[in-house]
Amino acid sequence: MGIRIGILGYGNLGRGVEAAIAQNPDMELVGVFTRRDPASVKITTKGVSVYHTDDAEKMTDKIDVMVICGGSATDLPHLTPKYAELFNVVDSFDTHANIPTHFASVDAAAKKGGKIGLISCGWDPGMFSLNRVYANAVLPQGKDYTFWGRGVSQGHSDAIRRIAGVVDARQYTCPVEGAVASVRAGENPELTTRQKHTRECFVVAEEGADRDRIAQEIKRMPNYFADYDTTVHFISQEELDRDHKGLPHGGFVIRSGKTGFDGEHQHIIEYSLKLDSNPEFTGSVLAACARAAYRMNQEGQSGGKTMLDIAPAYLCAQSGEELRAHML
Amino acid sequence: MGIRIGILGYGNLGRGVEAAIAQNPDMELVGVFTRRDPASVKITTKGVSVYHTDDAEKMTDKIDVMVICGGSATDLPHLTPKYAELFNVVDSFDTHANIPTHFASVDAAAKKGGKIGLISCGWDPGMFSLNRVYANAVLPQGKDYTFWGRGVSQGHSDAIRRIAGVVDARQYTCPVEGAVASVRAGENPELTTRQKHTRECFVVAEEGADRDRIAQEIKRMPNYFADYDTTVHFISQEELDRDHKGLPHGGFVIRSGKTGFDGEHQHIIEYSLKLDSNPEFTGSVLAACARAAYRMNQEGQSGGKTMLDIAPAYLCAQSGEELRAHML
Repeated sequence: MGIRIGILGYGNLGRGVEAAIAQNPDMELVGVFTRRDPASVKITTKGVSVYHTDDAEKMTDKIDVMVICGGSATDLPHLTPKYAELFNVVDSFDTHANIPTHFASVDAAAKKGGKIGLISCGWDPGMFSLNRVYANAVLPQGKDYTFWGRGVSQGHSDAIRRIAGVVDARQYTCPVEGAVASVRAGENPELTTRQKHTRECFVVAEEGADRDRIAQEIKRMPNYFADYDTTVHFISQEELDRDHKGLPHGGFVIRSGKTGFDGEHQHIIEYSLKLDSNPEFTGSVLAACARAAYRMNQEGQSGGKTMLDIAPAYLCAQSGEELRAHML
Repeated sequence: MGIRIGILGYGNLGRGVEAAIAQNPDMELVGVFTRRDPASVKITTKGVSVYHTDDAEKMTDKIDVMVICGGSATDLPHLTPKYAELFNVVDSFDTHANIPTHFASVDAAAKKGGKIGLISCGWDPGMFSLNRVYANAVLPQGKDYTFWGRGVSQGHSDAIRRIAGVVDARQYTCPVEGAVASVRAGENPELTTRQKHTRECFVVAEEGADRDRIAQEIKRMPNYFADYDTTVHFISQEELDRDHKGLPHGGFVIRSGKTGFDGEHQHIIEYSLKLDSNPEFTGSVLAACARAAYRMNQEGQSGGKTMLDIAPAYLCAQSGEELRAHML
């Protein structure tokens, strides 16, 4: 029997976790939990049931790790601590500024339950964070850069859709090529928000809507667009559905640092991701993290954790011997 | 008082570790240990003594971690286990095929001494291994590629210097650009040794030596050159000293994998290093690993470890709180 996983929440991310579990023979999906009517939710994995979230707490003996797939704004702050008392849990909480608060409440709940509460797993926070920490550990004298894209930002797409006269929208965050090239060349540039990323918007407007006004409303929107060079393209719903249906994303974490008694040698560490599907990749990270949470709890550990607290070997299905022989 | 470090062996790597310790305010160099006459060894750090290796075992109460800087062929297989009984130790053992054997002997010694014996730290094995393991954990269905260079291979340079008529030599390992591009494009090519790397040699020949014979001897050398497209340039000692004195290196670890129930989405994870000084970068990794070894031992852990067994937070000077607030 493999590690028994539950998925709580079945949107894009929950489906990504489900697909990832199917790729990992040491894991087994026990059930999907939803706040909707379970009969209305169809999942892909054969022979696995959909339950109402109210049923989860009766299944603590059937599930080793619950993967909480919810939004960081309103779902995870209460869901992850709630379930961390009952199960080992993994979430993808990604509001960077609120991580310390979220960590504290998950840590308290997980310690109370003797479980592992592993938060902020994914790629940023997640894989990108790991690379920032490794690069800072190895090159303490240096400068960090994180670029995102080219990829779809769902938050920005949603913000455009809230504008009057907009039917649908897709927003791409794009790194500025010249800025990336300068960083890679070790020039250590000081970059403003505008110099690092541009924003490209594909908008379906209502018939007869004032496109100029919509474009101006987008470009002037504080926090989301005002600090960026933003391009707005008006297209048809058919074009949007045909050309912009995917959820690609990615980006780069680069650290440029110096070593030597006089800082005479320069080094560039770069980590990059090119992802066809943001939710499936994030779901795959969550699945690997579920394995680690299970193993750490089996060893008697409990409490709040992030990927920074996980020895890499815990994430991989192979044994320590296999990893040393073949991957080291 | 910081973490008290000893350096055993003072070649390029030992000097790299020394320079790294100077960049880390939470570490303190206690002494350099040499098999040569200590009076003949000049180090850079002010106020720190050079000792004979025979004195090391009398200093177990003065040193928290001993960084063993020796060769993987003959030094480390006996030095690391010997000192792992007395100190927390870190080495850069890099003969991939012999890692399981080396691990077993260091593990036994470290357990006996109640110390941490952390082996094979650096960038390959080391940072590259971490990235292979993370990428495999996240994308279990995929293909790994490791490219090295452009960088100086000291083993290959030494092999050329052993040829009759050769005064000095520098060998660069170069990734084949087309192969890297194909991997990055997600084409998952099957690549032979020859298709992945080329070898470029800069050779200083004795006056009157038969350059054609030397070039042929290089190109036909089994294991080292015969399986590669190899270029040989004859240059003067002055040119070699002027243009090829550094020890740059680097490379790429790329994993190309698929997610989704039908493998419908492709993802590329790439980690790359561009290093001006291979020994200083490796020394910087060893210093961060010394911090981790110390912390793990302080928590009561002992035995053989590799970087795959270290939670990333242990490597970084900052506290867990600081990392979660600023780097996650």
